[in-house]
Amino acid sequence: MRVLGIDPGLTRCGVGVIEGDPGRPPALLLADVVRTPADAETGQRLAALERSLVQYVAEYRPDAIAVERVFARRDVSTIIGTAQASGVVLLVGTRAGLQVAQHTPSEVKAAITGSGRADKAQVGQMVMRILKLDAPPKPADAADAVALAVCHLWRAPAIARIQQAQVRRELVQAQAMARARAANRRKLA
Amino acid sequence: MRVLGIDPGLTRCGVGVIEGDPGRPPALLLADVVRTPADAETGQRLAALERSLVQYVAEYRPDAIAVERVFARRDVSTIIGTAQASGVVLLVGTRAGLQVAQHTPSEVKAAITGSGRADKAQVGQMVMRILKLDAPPKPADAADAVALAVCHLWRAPAIARIQQAQVRRELVQAQAMARARAANRRKLA
Repeated sequence: MRVLGIDPGLTRCGVGVIEGDPGRPPALLLADVVRTPADAETGQRLAALERSLVQYVAEYRPDAIAVERVFARRDVSTIIGTAQASGVVLLVGTRAGLQVAQHTPSEVKAAITGSGRADKAQVGQMVMRILKLDAPPKPADAADAVALAVCHLWRAPAIARIQQAQVRRELVQAQAMARARAANRRKLA
Repeated sequence: MRVLGIDPGLTRCGVGVIEGDPGRPPALLLADVVRTPADAETGQRLAALERSLVQYVAEYRPDAIAVERVFARRDVSTIIGTAQASGVVLLVGTRAGLQVAQHTPSEVKAAITGSGRADKAQVGQMVMRILKLDAPPKPADAADAVALAVCHLWRAPAIARIQQAQVRRELVQAQAMARARAANRRKLA
């Protein structure tokens, strides 16, 4: 499975691609940053980001996109631009027919270090070990995107298993109800 | 000049088109609302909004798009979705090569009623009179979009005049400097 991780932003948007299969350590294919000029109009910046993302999807053909879930926090002046950038990521992924998942920063930290409160350095160190790198992914802004991709790779099977378990439970219930109805019919016959 | 006004939102996105020329009252061509289901994935909702906006642009061929500028306010739970929807508007307008302007709610109120603190009813009444309608534009969510379009129609010439005045001032300064240099050269000769 190939995952494109995105740390959304207008001025700097982190991008990372990893590929992993069960029983093998995932491999890092790309760590990059998309920049758009702060003095350009927002529409121009979003359009430039869209073009870059479409190119990455065409070039790396990921199975899934993992993007950071943006929350409203009153003390962040850049929140609107970050939300708009994340919207473009969701849009590009959905249009390409990809699985698109949003993960919170705590989910990423917990998936990678075991603690939702790990700091950036701890996450970087673990990403380095997971991907068998000599140093954390560079540029620095791309490291968060790579961490998001690793988080998705590890959470995706768990989410799929939960969905499958739900389907099995519903099937078992349906079969039990069918047997009960059959028993009732025999009793009435 | 034909203006497409957009009041951005994921659940309900107001859309209005007006056309106006100097010396004539503007005419209302469209007042509508784009809805996307609250239980759909955000990427699907943004993609549906994008498709609708692209259709409106193709059908009405506006010269400009006016969209409400979204601000981070801590007490609004829908702010992220609204910011993402506004991002899609900016993206679609920019890609279409249109003039895309963001106006704040205060700018819209001030442009239409003369007061940045006017309430919704006052704005609705003035929009009705400006467009010579028997009732405020419906559905209600579209009224804000129509107000944005009227605001843009009225602010656009003022903004253009300010830009032209700036260009003239720079030209006058350049001519004055050229004359001064010429006078200096004559003195030295």
